[in-house]
Amino acid sequence: MTDPVMPVPDEIRAAFRRPPGRALMLGHVHPDADVLGTLLALGAALEDAGWLVDYGGPHPVPASLGFLPGSDRYRVLPRIDGRYDLAVLTDCPDPDRTEGLIDGARRSAAAIVNIDHHPDNRRYGTVNWIDPSAAATGELVYALIVALGLPVKPGMATNLFTAIHMDTGSFRYSNVTPQTFRIAAELVAAGAPPAFVSNQVYERRPPEALRQLGEVLSRIQVSEDGRIAWLALPAGLVPDTFIEAEDLVNYPRSIGTTKVAVLLRERPGGPVKVSLRAKGEVNVNRIAAGFGGGGHANAAGCVVQGTLEEATRRILAAVRDTIGR
Amino acid sequence: MTDPVMPVPDEIRAAFRRPPGRALMLGHVHPDADVLGTLLALGAALEDAGWLVDYGGPHPVPASLGFLPGSDRYRVLPRIDGRYDLAVLTDCPDPDRTEGLIDGARRSAAAIVNIDHHPDNRRYGTVNWIDPSAAATGELVYALIVALGLPVKPGMATNLFTAIHMDTGSFRYSNVTPQTFRIAAELVAAGAPPAFVSNQVYERRPPEALRQLGEVLSRIQVSEDGRIAWLALPAGLVPDTFIEAEDLVNYPRSIGTTKVAVLLRERPGGPVKVSLRAKGEVNVNRIAAGFGGGGHANAAGCVVQGTLEEATRRILAAVRDTIGR
Repeated sequence: MTDPVMPVPDEIRAAFRRPPGRALMLGHVHPDADVLGTLLALGAALEDAGWLVDYGGPHPVPASLGFLPGSDRYRVLPRIDGRYDLAVLTDCPDPDRTEGLIDGARRSAAAIVNIDHHPDNRRYGTVNWIDPSAAATGELVYALIVALGLPVKPGMATNLFTAIHMDTGSFRYSNVTPQTFRIAAELVAAGAPPAFVSNQVYERRPPEALRQLGEVLSRIQVSEDGRIAWLALPAGLVPDTFIEAEDLVNYPRSIGTTKVAVLLRERPGGPVKVSLRAKGEVNVNRIAAGFGGGGHANAAGCVVQGTLEEATRRILAAVRDTIGR
Repeated sequence: MTDPVMPVPDEIRAAFRRPPGRALMLGHVHPDADVLGTLLALGAALEDAGWLVDYGGPHPVPASLGFLPGSDRYRVLPRIDGRYDLAVLTDCPDPDRTEGLIDGARRSAAAIVNIDHHPDNRRYGTVNWIDPSAAATGELVYALIVALGLPVKPGMATNLFTAIHMDTGSFRYSNVTPQTFRIAAELVAAGAPPAFVSNQVYERRPPEALRQLGEVLSRIQVSEDGRIAWLALPAGLVPDTFIEAEDLVNYPRSIGTTKVAVLLRERPGGPVKVSLRAKGEVNVNRIAAGFGGGGHANAAGCVVQGTLEEATRRILAAVRDTIGR
């Protein structure tokens, strides 16, 4: 038996080991489960310790994550008012992803705490804890709450379990380690319900979503050599209520010959959102970085201006350049 | 920190704690990952301890599980020859599922060891270890190998991890416990590669499988009240090489209103194979038992004679009777 919890840097512990004050849990654009789950869990732990905590960011909680305990406390913030002792950002590699709220946070808060597992994190905090060996920022925040001696209550456990579940594709990705499973065990023991989380994430489709999924699958294309599979979705084809829009990239990925899978989603009147997935051999983070995006070696994303056709052409050319001909 | 391994009954340990002899690892019809993974892992552990081990059953290893380490040792057995000290059956609730091989095993082996997690196991062994609290028989066999003081090598870990992964739907079902995750952590630490297993299980589709899946999805039907969703597949629609035939039941299950999901697969010239899934409130094991099948409260199966239309009508009537109108 080994200790399930990785060491927490002293300066991170020190940031929270002070008389309770006011904290802002600050999310980035389009917050996902690893962002929201960690902000809500850490905020709830701090509240139990006597802190006053606000939660928010540039975008609201997506409907699909409305089941996260405490998510009703998370607000869309047009700007940051008031004074804080700490502003905490989790799973946010680049402060520009707060749509300017980082500037308000710097003015309003005595210190910025930056906790993340992205290797390209820009270390913009007053204190930074960046650990790319963690499959999810949820692992780090679990370790932090334990290190602070605060109890992990069922709601926090559900938030952190969901964060880890989503960032590992349900414990399937190459980022999963023994530590990931050990922490999942502790979270389930603390009250996180795996079947409830899976039900909320995967089993709330409207009946018509399966017909839409069928239509989407007919659009998957595969390169002649089979190594690139992609799915280009015009605006309006998949409604916003389609819970698993991001997960659609797993279908082109599921083809045996695929080395790189690409999902391109056209936004009405806006740029094309691109999700890239690799199966171990190709670093798609580098491809995404070439378009101003980022992520991990096996899972990255970016935004491309122009039409869906143009974006598809540019991304596929970049993928071909990277994997070689 | 608690002990990750559940206690192993003394009589089960005693069955293996003797001078090495000959063992038969005996699978049932259409062996799945929990059957094969546990037989192959326990057999390999016994071989390391000096036993001579044969592996086999009435049906071959399906192509989709050919990646399981040692699966090339598993043979189709028309009958059982030779003498054994032990015949071991795992994840086999009913000895009739060996297509008569149990009779040969009883004649050939000094003792039958029956290890399973199905609540309706018929306790047909000389020694029986039935623990329905285990999410997979893989959990029990892991505990057994550890209790016998034998090392869990990477191949065994991969077999047991796959067994647990598949019987929990990738750690998503209501059978998942802290113990499930603790054992998964130990298995990954022992060398089981989660991303490799997921890749083998989910990411080896031929490109045409996605088009077929799209067509399949268009056939999903939903009852007027939304509580029953089903998919009736005529023989030949989904080829046998379609890796995830069993998993197709998860699509009707994924609809938010679904209480019971049903997959009916017509076999050419044979009976209709039925998979039933519930979301917590309905016991589908009872429905399957009414047709001579079995399983768990949330996941069960049976075989129904007659045409696909007749089987669909009979099964849906039984489901309606169970969930009430």
